[in-house]
Amino acid sequence: MIVILKPDMGESNPEYRHILDYLANKPNIKTRVHQEIGTLQTLTEIYLIGDTASLDKTEIESLAGVDRVVRVSEEYRILGRHRDEKRQTGFEYNGVKFTQDNLIVFAGLCAVDTPQHVEMMLKALRDYGQVCTRMGAYKPRTNPYSFQGHGKKCLPWVFDLAGKYGIKVIAMEITHDSHLDEIHAALEQAGKPTGVMIQIGTRNTQNFELLKIVGRQREFPALLKRGFGITLEESLNAAEYLASEGNRNIVFGLRGMKTNMGDPHRNFVDFSHVPVIKRLTRMPVCIDPSHSVGTRDAAPDGILDIFHVTAQGVIAGADMVLVDFHPEPATALVDGPQALRLEELPYFLEDVAIAREAYEKRCALSKKAIGKD
Amino acid sequence: MIVILKPDMGESNPEYRHILDYLANKPNIKTRVHQEIGTLQTLTEIYLIGDTASLDKTEIESLAGVDRVVRVSEEYRILGRHRDEKRQTGFEYNGVKFTQDNLIVFAGLCAVDTPQHVEMMLKALRDYGQVCTRMGAYKPRTNPYSFQGHGKKCLPWVFDLAGKYGIKVIAMEITHDSHLDEIHAALEQAGKPTGVMIQIGTRNTQNFELLKIVGRQREFPALLKRGFGITLEESLNAAEYLASEGNRNIVFGLRGMKTNMGDPHRNFVDFSHVPVIKRLTRMPVCIDPSHSVGTRDAAPDGILDIFHVTAQGVIAGADMVLVDFHPEPATALVDGPQALRLEELPYFLEDVAIAREAYEKRCALSKKAIGKD
Amino acid sequence: MIVILKPDMGESNPEYRHILDYLANKPNIKTRVHQEIGTLQTLTEIYLIGDTASLDKTEIESLAGVDRVVRVSEEYRILGRHRDEKRQTGFEYNGVKFTQDNLIVFAGLCAVDTPQHVEMMLKALRDYGQVCTRMGAYKPRTNPYSFQGHGKKCLPWVFDLAGKYGIKVIAMEITHDSHLDEIHAALEQAGKPTGVMIQIGTRNTQNFELLKIVGRQREFPALLKRGFGITLEESLNAAEYLASEGNRNIVFGLRGMKTNMGDPHRNFVDFSHVPVIKRLTRMPVCIDPSHSVGTRDAAPDGILDIFHVTAQGVIAGADMVLVDFHPEPATALVDGPQALRLEELPYFLEDVAIAREAYEKRCALSKKAIGKD
Amino acid sequence: MIVILKPDMGESNPEYRHILDYLANKPNIKTRVHQEIGTLQTLTEIYLIGDTASLDKTEIESLAGVDRVVRVSEEYRILGRHRDEKRQTGFEYNGVKFTQDNLIVFAGLCAVDTPQHVEMMLKALRDYGQVCTRMGAYKPRTNPYSFQGHGKKCLPWVFDLAGKYGIKVIAMEITHDSHLDEIHAALEQAGKPTGVMIQIGTRNTQNFELLKIVGRQREFPALLKRGFGITLEESLNAAEYLASEGNRNIVFGLRGMKTNMGDPHRNFVDFSHVPVIKRLTRMPVCIDPSHSVGTRDAAPDGILDIFHVTAQGVIAGADMVLVDFHPEPATALVDGPQALRLEELPYFLEDVAIAREAYEKRCALSKKAIGKD
Repeated sequence: MIVILKPDMGESNPEYRHILDYLANKPNIKTRVHQEIGTLQTLTEIYLIGDTASLDKTEIESLAGVDRVVRVSEEYRILGRHRDEKRQTGFEYNGVKFTQDNLIVFAGLCAVDTPQHVEMMLKALRDYGQVCTRMGAYKPRTNPYSFQGHGKKCLPWVFDLAGKYGIKVIAMEITHDSHLDEIHAALEQAGKPTGVMIQIGTRNTQNFELLKIVGRQREFPALLKRGFGITLEESLNAAEYLASEGNRNIVFGLRGMKTNMGDPHRNFVDFSHVPVIKRLTRMPVCIDPSHSVGTRDAAPDGILDIFHVTAQGVIAGADMVLVDFHPEPATALVDGPQALRLEELPYFLEDVAIAREAYEKRCALSKKAIGKD
Repeated sequence: MIVILKPDMGESNPEYRHILDYLANKPNIKTRVHQEIGTLQTLTEIYLIGDTASLDKTEIESLAGVDRVVRVSEEYRILGRHRDEKRQTGFEYNGVKFTQDNLIVFAGLCAVDTPQHVEMMLKALRDYGQVCTRMGAYKPRTNPYSFQGHGKKCLPWVFDLAGKYGIKVIAMEITHDSHLDEIHAALEQAGKPTGVMIQIGTRNTQNFELLKIVGRQREFPALLKRGFGITLEESLNAAEYLASEGNRNIVFGLRGMKTNMGDPHRNFVDFSHVPVIKRLTRMPVCIDPSHSVGTRDAAPDGILDIFHVTAQGVIAGADMVLVDFHPEPATALVDGPQALRLEELPYFLEDVAIAREAYEKRCALSKKAIGKD
Repeated sequence: MIVILKPDMGESNPEYRHILDYLANKPNIKTRVHQEIGTLQTLTEIYLIGDTASLDKTEIESLAGVDRVVRVSEEYRILGRHRDEKRQTGFEYNGVKFTQDNLIVFAGLCAVDTPQHVEMMLKALRDYGQVCTRMGAYKPRTNPYSFQGHGKKCLPWVFDLAGKYGIKVIAMEITHDSHLDEIHAALEQAGKPTGVMIQIGTRNTQNFELLKIVGRQREFPALLKRGFGITLEESLNAAEYLASEGNRNIVFGLRGMKTNMGDPHRNFVDFSHVPVIKRLTRMPVCIDPSHSVGTRDAAPDGILDIFHVTAQGVIAGADMVLVDFHPEPATALVDGPQALRLEELPYFLEDVAIAREAYEKRCALSKKAIGKD
Repeated sequence: MIVILKPDMGESNPEYRHILDYLANKPNIKTRVHQEIGTLQTLTEIYLIGDTASLDKTEIESLAGVDRVVRVSEEYRILGRHRDEKRQTGFEYNGVKFTQDNLIVFAGLCAVDTPQHVEMMLKALRDYGQVCTRMGAYKPRTNPYSFQGHGKKCLPWVFDLAGKYGIKVIAMEITHDSHLDEIHAALEQAGKPTGVMIQIGTRNTQNFELLKIVGRQREFPALLKRGFGITLEESLNAAEYLASEGNRNIVFGLRGMKTNMGDPHRNFVDFSHVPVIKRLTRMPVCIDPSHSVGTRDAAPDGILDIFHVTAQGVIAGADMVLVDFHPEPATALVDGPQALRLEELPYFLEDVAIAREAYEKRCALSKKAIGKD
């Protein structure tokens, strides 16, 4: 059960104290307070755990300072929708909005290699009006003898270049909590020229210790990729790990599932789950067409499968696209064969725009049609 | 290896005879002639099986009457593209065109129940300009004690009503070759008021004897659904069974795969394979959003998941949509919960049109972009 | 609900008539009578379908002629155990017993090729005391251009040779109901020198029309292979199709599941389900190690994986083993690479015997241990 | 390529220096030396990475001090067998031998709860001659709001009790590298009354950073569980991560795969892979029947499925069994329903012994049979 207080109702208010006293007197009920400090107001939510079935929702709602009370199902206590459509989805970070109602593209390098390539990529993004990118410094690899990323060494010049080209958010995967410290330190050192969205990859979706540590900090938002061999429910529970530690600025990422039923694609594309995640939770949904498809094969209509599945995600309401580009795919250290070429960037963005426009038309049609019913 | 003859080059031509004689003299080579008799011209293809590696492609192409020669890979001899983009895709049946370049909707009843419901459905289709439908008479059911469809008893009045409302093609599943005879007889009896596309369901994708029998007749085209537990390659090989017996008028249908990775959808939606099938074969591709999704759940944008996945299939180039409607879902004998309501038909068609329009814009953009490169 | 009558209680008994009258008076209840005519006695069971919740079990059990009443769960009405441990499992056919309490090996050729090979195989079986074999005449193949079996042509000499070497039961796959007629005719023609167990392969597990036709005859028992891409529950429901038409002489076969999680084996070996099937149904359980494993790879202990998984099935109580042998694997037309060699037959049988002996010891230990509790 | 030196050939030997000089002169070749310091002798292996195709195996083998040279395939450089049957498998730890040739049972508590329960468990183990156990202090849970284990608090009394009852090795899962330090510290503090095998669970199989850290220490051996949603090859590559950092004392654990094809078991039991892992690598293989099966259901023969699948693993050569027991399953904090009861311990051990005896008979038979061929 969640008790949502009226805006700006905080510790200094007598109503706040009275509400907590009231709850403290209830047997077998523990409380946990969460505050979301926004630029305009502070939202306070009190989570009740334990024998909540015995509580009287109406009585609590009648207390001064209480906005409303939401009964939550067992699953996804914090991130779930719980059939309450009024609660906020998403968040703002470094001037960029991540919600269930808009769309942001993160084109970039799967793995950082040379300053020249990074700069070519960032310049192209700036030229086409983009303010987000992906840049992999820490790469988890199936084989221990493969290249594992440049790690913290590349952070200073990557952040500098990002600042130079006006990049606001870099999605960057980490595989150990020490990487979080390294990113924090390098950003401070560089004077915070850009922002970082901490990405947790599919192999670490159930690395609960890493989730807890990322969840405990509130500096960086997180992009959690779905586990490629577990159910959707289990992956959403993993997202709840982040939220349960305090950090609710989470984007949930689809990247294809591991089964040979998806052949000849590298993974079984799961973007049909875009509307499902938006129904079950309040997280914005990201799609990763590059790792899902894993090839540059094209249909007879001349369109690459990577473009096709991107359009599929976007026309169903995806809020973020993570996509691999490379100035010279042949020399890329990781996943070169699936990378789009830099000169394809404007074409890709235009293709995404067609799908997004179609999604918006569909939403308008839906409103009209449901209104008619 | 396929030797494609010039149009209207048939048995009566001396060149034809000469070509066959030439091939008959080659050691370890068997030939098989396939003729496609169209309204305007006859196309003849000679399939060569055996030690074709020893044949000289250029020499054969130099023979009078030969248009060109295509080396085929082992797989999908007849249906495959074999990197020859000029060969025809699809077919025309009862005045309706099924190709990789257009889109036809088959809205209708999963299972025929009463004449009233069938007539309500068909009338609505006519009112919204539709000439195709789905109507299930023979229903394979997991549990032997469930309703198995009205069978041949309902065919006479279903066909009569179809004729009355201008329906050109009914997609109808069969589960035994005797059903083919029953449909043929009932159509003759009724005076052929409509056409039938024989549908082979996912549980019979590898029922090779049924495929051979359907492949041997050329009266009806076939819609082969992908097997829900086998690889795409195996399902495409099953389609080749139909073609290898002579019938090439085949549409390939996607309907979701059986794995709990797709939960909470009934099946794991596989429409990302639309462009793949068009690349590998010359078959038009159908999507079945109703059985893939299996529920009427909607996203917070108000749009049903069934609509979302349909849009996903269409924006990637799907050529046919098979979708369940019912005038009274609560009384439907089979799969009522997933059926769309009759009053949702115009909304559904309009939603599909938005996605199709987006697909066509994407094709135009692709031509422009690739031209630029 | 099943009303089980006392032995030899049949239509000529007044009690029988009275019981049926009693049931006919119950509203919304349909009855279906099944008789199992054995060599010593006739067992009659009356299946009640409809609103059975309203019936009084004790009242029915008090009727003269009724032995007992079993409430059945929705699933597996006929084949299920329904927690009634006293009902019979299995059957006898042509002098061979198939129950949940013994073990029969069916070694033989995956596909019949030459009379010489068939005779070599059968002679070896006779020499090592075997009376059952497998012999494939009709072969479903993924690729339409592969060898599809010799079909009915080979039946006369296969049956003759079987008779010559004392074979009592041949497991033989059919893929169309016409094959059933062909086998029946060839057996009659040959003077019934042997018996046949009709095998339904994994691609036809949900070919319900074929199941119904095989279920309607009672001449031949059936071996139903589990579907390699569906749940166990769905495959057991398919077995119930056979039983619901009257034929209860069914063996259920495990042959591995289709998923790359089983690599490097050809299929994911599922013999851990042996005890599960015995708990859920009254069918004897067969294992097929050859198709599950699909290679002749051996462990460092020198034992082939095919032997290892056979031992795994047997030590958990498997009742039948279907295994591919070939006198000359290199020339086998189908699945040669996985075939065991004829000279390995005695070694294989001895290895199976070790595992079976261990199973029997485990059963004895279980009785002692549970007795102690 | 691996250059295996003669025993006790180390840095102080001139041959050793000469061999390294020889290799240093080869272009594009890097070397890495691994030493296994045993109680009786020291084994030195030099791993060559780079352009090894250009090296002359015979020439290197002719160098003084070289025992032999093994060409390794790309995969599993250190752990792989590479068709060299003479290399050692397994290791000894705290007086217990872990090899591909023996069998050790680790019965114990899935999650440590109270000192009373731990002591009851350990006493029973001692009474039945066991010197190993499993005790979970750190529990990764799907739901963030579930009990996560007592953590480091319980280590002191768990280790003390283990020492009191003569336990030599406790298998204990860790989910973060800090747990490794905590275990080390607690063991030191307690005076090393027992040993610990570090267990890495299925959710962390591809937590490469954790693997590297565990691989860098040599104090504790590791039990790596297979990832439940990835291929076997990927899980074996994960084991190679441990080895590539220096620690080769690794046991590989099977625990069932995550797919509904395994229903009604909690996971799809994969013990058919026991011989496969022994063929591909030199690691001893552990099976975990409790988490694979996940229930206490029994077959009609009275034997629990957990016992059945254990016997299946053991008869195919499993080297270690990890199994959940609990003195009071009803009060267990984690996975109570699947736990065996303490009074079932002797019965379980006897059942395992029957299967092991059968395995040994099968090995003897194999030697005889292959000798005959």
